[in-house]
Amino acid sequence: MTQQFVPALSETGTALSIACIFLVPLCGAGLALINTGLGRSRSAAHSMLAALCVIAVAALMYFACGYSWQGFAGRPAHVITVSGKAWNWIAAEPFFLRGLQLDGSPASLAALLQMLSVGLAAMIPLGSGSDRWRLSAICVSTALLAGFTYPLYAHWVWGGGWLAQVGAHYGLGRGFLDAGGGSTIQAVGGLTALAIAWIIGPRRGKYSPDGMPTAIPGHNAVLVLLGCALALVGWLGLNSAGAILFAGVAPTAVVLVGVNTVISAAVAALAAVMITRMRFGKPDASLVANGWVGGLVASSAACASVTPAAALVIGLVAGILVTVSIELFEVRLAVDDPGGAVSVHAVGGIWGVLALGFFAHFPKPVSGQWLAQLVGVATLLGFVLPLTYGLNWLLERFVPQRAPLEGERLGMDVYELGATAYPEFVTHTEEFIQR
Amino acid sequence: MTQQFVPALSETGTALSIACIFLVPLCGAGLALINTGLGRSRSAAHSMLAALCVIAVAALMYFACGYSWQGFAGRPAHVITVSGKAWNWIAAEPFFLRGLQLDGSPASLAALLQMLSVGLAAMIPLGSGSDRWRLSAICVSTALLAGFTYPLYAHWVWGGGWLAQVGAHYGLGRGFLDAGGGSTIQAVGGLTALAIAWIIGPRRGKYSPDGMPTAIPGHNAVLVLLGCALALVGWLGLNSAGAILFAGVAPTAVVLVGVNTVISAAVAALAAVMITRMRFGKPDASLVANGWVGGLVASSAACASVTPAAALVIGLVAGILVTVSIELFEVRLAVDDPGGAVSVHAVGGIWGVLALGFFAHFPKPVSGQWLAQLVGVATLLGFVLPLTYGLNWLLERFVPQRAPLEGERLGMDVYELGATAYPEFVTHTEEFIQR
Amino acid sequence: MTQQFVPALSETGTALSIACIFLVPLCGAGLALINTGLGRSRSAAHSMLAALCVIAVAALMYFACGYSWQGFAGRPAHVITVSGKAWNWIAAEPFFLRGLQLDGSPASLAALLQMLSVGLAAMIPLGSGSDRWRLSAICVSTALLAGFTYPLYAHWVWGGGWLAQVGAHYGLGRGFLDAGGGSTIQAVGGLTALAIAWIIGPRRGKYSPDGMPTAIPGHNAVLVLLGCALALVGWLGLNSAGAILFAGVAPTAVVLVGVNTVISAAVAALAAVMITRMRFGKPDASLVANGWVGGLVASSAACASVTPAAALVIGLVAGILVTVSIELFEVRLAVDDPGGAVSVHAVGGIWGVLALGFFAHFPKPVSGQWLAQLVGVATLLGFVLPLTYGLNWLLERFVPQRAPLEGERLGMDVYELGATAYPEFVTHTEEFIQR
Repeated sequence: MTQQFVPALSETGTALSIACIFLVPLCGAGLALINTGLGRSRSAAHSMLAALCVIAVAALMYFACGYSWQGFAGRPAHVITVSGKAWNWIAAEPFFLRGLQLDGSPASLAALLQMLSVGLAAMIPLGSGSDRWRLSAICVSTALLAGFTYPLYAHWVWGGGWLAQVGAHYGLGRGFLDAGGGSTIQAVGGLTALAIAWIIGPRRGKYSPDGMPTAIPGHNAVLVLLGCALALVGWLGLNSAGAILFAGVAPTAVVLVGVNTVISAAVAALAAVMITRMRFGKPDASLVANGWVGGLVASSAACASVTPAAALVIGLVAGILVTVSIELFEVRLAVDDPGGAVSVHAVGGIWGVLALGFFAHFPKPVSGQWLAQLVGVATLLGFVLPLTYGLNWLLERFVPQRAPLEGERLGMDVYELGATAYPEFVTHTEEFIQR
Repeated sequence: MTQQFVPALSETGTALSIACIFLVPLCGAGLALINTGLGRSRSAAHSMLAALCVIAVAALMYFACGYSWQGFAGRPAHVITVSGKAWNWIAAEPFFLRGLQLDGSPASLAALLQMLSVGLAAMIPLGSGSDRWRLSAICVSTALLAGFTYPLYAHWVWGGGWLAQVGAHYGLGRGFLDAGGGSTIQAVGGLTALAIAWIIGPRRGKYSPDGMPTAIPGHNAVLVLLGCALALVGWLGLNSAGAILFAGVAPTAVVLVGVNTVISAAVAALAAVMITRMRFGKPDASLVANGWVGGLVASSAACASVTPAAALVIGLVAGILVTVSIELFEVRLAVDDPGGAVSVHAVGGIWGVLALGFFAHFPKPVSGQWLAQLVGVATLLGFVLPLTYGLNWLLERFVPQRAPLEGERLGMDVYELGATAYPEFVTHTEEFIQR
Repeated sequence: MTQQFVPALSETGTALSIACIFLVPLCGAGLALINTGLGRSRSAAHSMLAALCVIAVAALMYFACGYSWQGFAGRPAHVITVSGKAWNWIAAEPFFLRGLQLDGSPASLAALLQMLSVGLAAMIPLGSGSDRWRLSAICVSTALLAGFTYPLYAHWVWGGGWLAQVGAHYGLGRGFLDAGGGSTIQAVGGLTALAIAWIIGPRRGKYSPDGMPTAIPGHNAVLVLLGCALALVGWLGLNSAGAILFAGVAPTAVVLVGVNTVISAAVAALAAVMITRMRFGKPDASLVANGWVGGLVASSAACASVTPAAALVIGLVAGILVTVSIELFEVRLAVDDPGGAVSVHAVGGIWGVLALGFFAHFPKPVSGQWLAQLVGVATLLGFVLPLTYGLNWLLERFVPQRAPLEGERLGMDVYELGATAYPEFVTHTEEFIQR
């Protein structure tokens, strides 16, 4: 019944997976720094603390019930038979990892990886909710994402679910493929970031009465760019572990994954330099950082199945798309997303998933892979986005997600934590800093 | 004569150990950021420089003589025969690692791990000595810890010494067990932090004449929380390497170690959020950071021998204990410990060691493991604490450990380094920053 | 025709190499923080953004043509026959890695390692060009280094080129040896830093009209020292991967590499503490940081072939040399190198390469190794320095490398990026900060 490539791992494969998984929290550390640096100084401690809480809540929810709904290819799952075919729609594992031997099996490695990567997904909406999203709501929203939305979609992709099965059942290539989590982690997180931005609305003062956006610069560009460097290390681990566990790549072939990841990030960052230089006369540091991460995000899905030349194209398009998309969301769609989370993670992730359909090559050629990828993306937009929006809309009925005006004025640090991040430094007190 | 589980390592086991050991300096980087962020801006460069010096002095002292006294199970040691039993009390290896082939043997891996982890232990007292402990004293105190106190106790636990032997000799379970260094690294460091806090006394202005403590907020919460994220990566490496080398775990079983480490840190941080919210109405970022690290610390001893559910309990209790203990030391015991080092590392570490006695399960069940753990803790409190206090008390006779009032007023940066950490930023000059 | 030790790697060797290579970007993150922290706050975003661009440009240029000129021992190369001997002078691989299976072979691992380490080399000149070097020139200069200078010299050393051949052809030991890149990465980068410092000249106000240097303190010592800690982790990975791939070390023998790396950095930092304390009465945090990195740099070449005691001597000399050299360049030679890049990387790297000649011991003793090392250093000074100076001098004709006075006055952030790194913090506006 297993539809995915999951060979029994050699001891070396297990060891390399573990070493790679241990680097994954650096993705989260990087994103936390980027989100914090792109936000205001008056919300900096809140932003970092929220990131820590997100990692914690996500890991525990995934441990409690997330894994039991995600499962792993070839393990117990609920099946519906439609038109003579058995579709696997949700896993059926016991809660609290009780059914799983943590012994280095691919399933156990996948569980460890996800306990960390689900926190990465849940950290993405912090970027769009900066400077106004309340900590209690963040924790509950994370619990919903890590406990249900993420595992459900990830089961379909990585757990032997129906998106993985469209290959065997309908001949769409090898079924929906995503080695490093461009859809399951990045797009799911990015679409949740969009839902949050819609639900809580823009920051006070972001849009003038006639709808024109004001630039609110991030408070610390050094943190942002340090975050990019840490994210690279984390992503090398994430893509490699995913390639071994979810794309059946041999440990020796991880070299290709590393090369593709670096190339994609590099070209995406340089594309952002070029575009912002053409548009504004000067390169924009925060958009270049977004481009860099967008390149990492776009590299994930196809990292194990394309050539470095294809990774170059994937990164180039990602850099352009992310930069253009950020402006589109900010100016045209009036979505206030201080961290660029929607563009970087949803747009970048979806592009990476589609790109696999165009560029992937396999030992045995397949046809229709692009259609499988399209089905996966349609599921993201047509099912995951409404689901995550709906859950957060419901949450809003019970836990007000947005800080009141008073909180925004004081800053989230003083309002929610009772202390500022930098109590000894003198900061500008005027509302918007113009240079 | 070897009492510990140290199977010959496969080449894969060696490689995974190395990859994990290389992550251990991130524990130190994390602690350095936490200590620095929780201190004053006027001592920030001093705090970071002290951390670098501690890593350096500790590694060199361990290389020079520490390893020769710690040794490794099954290698040369001095033995005393008491009541017919041969007790192994200190190793007898040549100085400067001359007797050890650095060839990937478990003993050589342990030596490499310790050269880094002894620096971690020695960095812990920097947290309690913030803003007033002098660099020269820090270096000598580190030399004493890394050259004698740590190796002696670590020999007893990890070097085939008498604490490891209480199992075989008296039937106390498998002898004292500690996979990741909850006692050898954390408690030894934490108890030394207590000794230092006692010897150098509280910061000027910390306590009012009637003994009430004043809150002196840390100068940079972002550094503190970034430190937590880096510490997670470091701890994954530390616990895993320790589990392979000191608990005889197979490389494939490191998955369990990873899961337990993450769960323990996560639940401890959330426990600290809950408690500080109940106590003060709002979560306190620095106490949550302390809770997070406390969870990591508590996870170390038992990471390889308990279920994830037990790790959940261990982390939960650690989060509560650390938060309560910090207040207890500050308010009741008048111990000024700006970094919470005593509570996080001594209390958290000891709890983790005891918890192993309650929760550990082994392939072959044993009895009396809790008693072995208790003997180890009694040795920490009854022998290591007096020893480390005595050594630092003696040191105080030769090298004044505390900066004079002038130094505290100027800040350690100007007083000891002649330059500030942030010369271009405008900082508040009033003594205590109240908001 | 292969002159170097490159045994076929076991799967474990491949896996450990990959795990180590993935840590290498932390070297770059560390250097970026050090350069930024040692520069002015008004150029901080520019410094970090330049680091990101350098990593990106270098990786892409190496992918495009760098690897094709560097190649790997035993693979296609151009050969000249001189006095009856076949000298290998440049590789002949197709562009864009098209001729290389990325399958875990030593050549493919070397390519991945270099895509990251060439960025490290190219980041070194950012240290000497701080606060005045323009981003466009940085990118083109990086392209020249990563696309030509580095691959050419690295071919000679690591690609089976003539420097590696002097052993077999003339009996100079085993030919020029450099496991971790003390010459190829560090000295090539450091000599380029010298060329840049000469070409763009000192910062405005650095030297008084009578040639006396003014101290311009770095703006953030915490970033500098955090960079040191991250660099340690990166270097452990870099030296280990290099030792496996370029010195033919077994994965199990990487323990020695780790021990040597730590010892060298530790003793170099403490040497810098001692010297600055003797010279100025107080230890200097930025010089200690330079000493630490100098110790890492000096450890690279010989990390796999000397004893820990020799590593101690190498680090000690490195710490002294770097500290003295920084003053020499600043005061006597009027080279304004804010990051100490020339002394740390060129002087430290060359010392490490020579030290291999004195201290290396091999299973089969060889003679004349020191002469091979001397030939390699002579090539650096007599060929690489003029080449890199010449290329950057030519570049200066087409792309002005130095920002105009206006740019220096405003700061590179505002001048080149249109925004500052820390817009919400109040900074001193006077030109030089004196305490």
